[in-house]
Amino acid sequence: MTLDEERNARHAARMARKKALIDSRIAEANLDTGVLLVLTGNGKGKSSSAFGMVARAIGHGMKVGVVQFIKSRTDTGEEALLGRHCEWHVMGDGFTWDTQNREGDTRKAEEAWAIASRMLADPAYELVVLDELTYCLSYGYLDKARVLADLESRPDMQHVVVTGRAAAKELLEIADTVSVIENDKHAYNAGIRAQKGVEW
Amino acid sequence: MTLDEERNARHAARMARKKALIDSRIAEANLDTGVLLVLTGNGKGKSSSAFGMVARAIGHGMKVGVVQFIKSRTDTGEEALLGRHCEWHVMGDGFTWDTQNREGDTRKAEEAWAIASRMLADPAYELVVLDELTYCLSYGYLDKARVLADLESRPDMQHVVVTGRAAAKELLEIADTVSVIENDKHAYNAGIRAQKGVEW
Repeated sequence: MTLDEERNARHAARMARKKALIDSRIAEANLDTGVLLVLTGNGKGKSSSAFGMVARAIGHGMKVGVVQFIKSRTDTGEEALLGRHCEWHVMGDGFTWDTQNREGDTRKAEEAWAIASRMLADPAYELVVLDELTYCLSYGYLDKARVLADLESRPDMQHVVVTGRAAAKELLEIADTVSVIENDKHAYNAGIRAQKGVEW
Repeated sequence: MTLDEERNARHAARMARKKALIDSRIAEANLDTGVLLVLTGNGKGKSSSAFGMVARAIGHGMKVGVVQFIKSRTDTGEEALLGRHCEWHVMGDGFTWDTQNREGDTRKAEEAWAIASRMLADPAYELVVLDELTYCLSYGYLDKARVLADLESRPDMQHVVVTGRAAAKELLEIADTVSVIENDKHAYNAGIRAQKGVEW
């Protein structure tokens, strides 16, 4: 055998082992159900990932609802494209951690949750995205027990994606999939500001 | 100028820009430049996040190119929706660990890289996504030095997103932002298979 042939043979054997492993796992995972996915951690990519799933679901002709609990800016690319194909709500103006207006923020969070709650009670919605919801729980703008109850009592086949830093442990407990995104480095630290098409 | 000279000039300009950036030691992030974002780690959300950025960029009217280096299935929601609004290439048939054919896979990877390379040389593309590229480097299907050179010599304002597990350290070194996604838990381990609108 030449060196190349040997390398190809080893490669084939390795891939065959991998395929057997993957096939056996696929054979085990055979349930279809709505999943609750939580995307948390301090890294870049949580909301992007949720919007990627929105694009997937829309591409399959599924009914999708999005509620954004923090309004960073009004001119986002995700809303411009995806908002044309699904129901897209952004929580009222001015909600940030520096408004220093707890009553106003709480009222807006409750209005946004009323929309989310309606979606979570309606089997017609096949995917519901609750973007940056975790902050409303961290700051106590929403009642955690009510949020958890609405999530747990949702229709069987409905998928839900929750994003945001520092997700509450009770939320992680009821989640089916928890992805934690951390940054090894970030362009921001090199003086590069948020870029159109990347961060918004 | 030859194509090579042009690339070298762009690379030099990019490095000068980076150096100026570091030298200036500005406290605030106020620079605009193309960023190289790497999404790696074993968790769920890497490709979704890239596709979320594709949706953003399309929403802003930006020109986007996508090359998927692993073809998991032909009926993905992301391609159905986003592929209508941008250039979308999927590497020829054959999920690597299904084929067990190193030569065939290498040829397909090279064909796919030829497309990627063309995009990386063309300033008209404002965002280029190289989905699951890392595997082609891990398995030696593509020449690492060539891939890195093409990435580094790309147009100044072009954003690139690379996804996949176990990204090479040289790739992490030239990246502006590195997000590492890990799973604290995954529905798969509870017997739930890949769900439409979530995983594909």
